[in-house]
Amino acid sequence: MPIEKQRRKITAKLGSSEFSALQRKILDFRNARDWAQFHDPKNLAEALSIEAGELLENFLWKTTEQSRNLTAEKLKNVREELSDIFIFLIYLCEEYKIDLLKEVESKVAHNEVKYPVEKSKGSSKKYTEY
Amino acid sequence: MPIEKQRRKITAKLGSSEFSALQRKILDFRNARDWAQFHDPKNLAEALSIEAGELLENFLWKTTEQSRNLTAEKLKNVREELSDIFIFLIYLCEEYKIDLLKEVESKVAHNEVKYPVEKSKGSSKKYTEY
Amino acid sequence: MPIEKQRRKITAKLGSSEFSALQRKILDFRNARDWAQFHDPKNLAEALSIEAGELLENFLWKTTEQSRNLTAEKLKNVREELSDIFIFLIYLCEEYKIDLLKEVESKVAHNEVKYPVEKSKGSSKKYTEY
Amino acid sequence: MPIEKQRRKITAKLGSSEFSALQRKILDFRNARDWAQFHDPKNLAEALSIEAGELLENFLWKTTEQSRNLTAEKLKNVREELSDIFIFLIYLCEEYKIDLLKEVESKVAHNEVKYPVEKSKGSSKKYTEY
Repeated sequence: MPIEKQRRKITAKLGSSEFSALQRKILDFRNARDWAQFHDPKNLAEALSIEAGELLENFLWKTTEQSRNLTAEKLKNVREELSDIFIFLIYLCEEYKIDLLKEVESKVAHNEVKYPVEKSKGSSKKYTEY
Repeated sequence: MPIEKQRRKITAKLGSSEFSALQRKILDFRNARDWAQFHDPKNLAEALSIEAGELLENFLWKTTEQSRNLTAEKLKNVREELSDIFIFLIYLCEEYKIDLLKEVESKVAHNEVKYPVEKSKGSSKKYTEY
Repeated sequence: MPIEKQRRKITAKLGSSEFSALQRKILDFRNARDWAQFHDPKNLAEALSIEAGELLENFLWKTTEQSRNLTAEKLKNVREELSDIFIFLIYLCEEYKIDLLKEVESKVAHNEVKYPVEKSKGSSKKYTEY
Repeated sequence: MPIEKQRRKITAKLGSSEFSALQRKILDFRNARDWAQFHDPKNLAEALSIEAGELLENFLWKTTEQSRNLTAEKLKNVREELSDIFIFLIYLCEEYKIDLLKEVESKVAHNEVKYPVEKSKGSSKKYTEY
C-alpha cells in the first residue's frame, strides 16, 4: 500500500479508537431515540443497579464452582447484563463529562497505595481491616 | 516529523490501545496481590452489585434536578464508584474470556432492532410494553 | 362463652400472634421442600438484593408523581416483591436466631438518638452530614 | 387483678399486636421528623435496595461456611441492615395501604402452587426451569 493511503487509514483509526467509537455509537443510539430526557443520573444509577441485580441472579444458589461453569443460556445472559452495565456507565460519564479510562487509571493508582502488595497479598480483607 | 518516524509512533500507539492497556493494568494489579483466588464470578457479581448500590446512594432522596448538581464531594464519590464498577466488569470479562467492547457493540446492534426509532422515540417504555 | 374458656382462647392467640404464625408458615414451606440446604446467609442476602432490584424496576424512569400512581399491574408486582423481601428477611433471621421485631424496635430507639427531632425535622440529610 | 380488668387489658393488647405496635412506632418516628415528604415510593425503593447492598457486603468474598460464622461486629451490622430493610418495607406498605402480613400470607399460598413439593423438593431450580 502506498505510504499516503496507509497513513490516511491509520489516522482514521486513531481518530476514533475502538473505545471512543463505541462510546459515540452508544450516544448516537440515544440521540436517535430522544432518550436523554429520561437519562438524569438518578435514573441512570437506578438502571445500573437493577442490571447489576439481574447479573447477580445468574449466580444465585450456585456454588463457586458452578458459577465458573455456567450453561450457554446463563452465559449469554451474563454477556448481555455486562453490556447493559457498560452502556449505563457510558451515559453516566457523559452526564458529568468524566473521561472513564483516565478515571479508572487514577483509581487503580489510588488502589496501589490503599492496598500495598506486602499487606494485601493473598488476603481478601478490606483496607479498613488491616 | 518524517513519515517513517511518524508511522512508528502511530503503530506503537495502535499496538496498545488505551483500553487494552488499562485492562492489562487492572489484571496486573490483581496478579501482584494474588487475588484471582477470591475472584470467582459469583463474588465478582456480588461486588459489582454492592458498588452499584454505593453509586446509587449519592442520589438518594434527591430530585432529578439535584442529581444533576452534585457537590464536589458527592461527585468525587460517583467517579470512584464508576471506576470500581468498570474494574469488576473487566474481571468478569477476563473470567469468561469476553471481549467487552465487541460484546457491547453487538448489544447496541441488538438494541437497535429491539427499540426501533419510530416506536421508541421520546418514550421510556420497555420493549415488552409496546 | 364462660370467662375461663374465653381467657384460654385469648391466651392461645396471644401465644401465636399473626406475625409468628406467618413466620412459622414460611419456615414450614421451606422444610417441606428441603431448601434449607441452599439457604446459607450469603445466598439469602444475594436473593434479597436481587428482589430489591426487581422492586426498584417498577419505578425506573418514573417521576416521583408517577411512582405514587402505579398501574394495577405494576402495583401487583410491587406487592409480590415486598412479600419476597419479607420472606428472605425471615429466613435470614432464622439463620442467626434474630428476633426481628425486637431488633427493629431497638433500631428505632437507636435512630431516635441518631436523628434528634430538632436537628432532623424536615431535612433529608444523613446523620453524618449534620 | 379482677378478671374484667384483665380481659380489657388483654383485648387492648390484641387490638394492637406487637407487629402493629411496631408499625405505629415506625410511622410516628417519621411523622415527628416530617420525613414523609421525602418518602415517595421511588426513593423508598432506592433506599431499600441500597440497604440490601450493605447487607450483602457482610458476605462478600466469604465462603458459605464463613457466612454462617460471622464476627460479632459483622453480625451486629447484619442485624442493623435487616432492621433498616424492614423499616423501608413498612414505609412502602403505608404508601400503598398494603397489609404486609396478609400480603405475604397470600404470596406463600401462591408459592405453594408455583413450587409443588414433588417437583421442587431438594432442587434450587426456579419454577420457570422445571
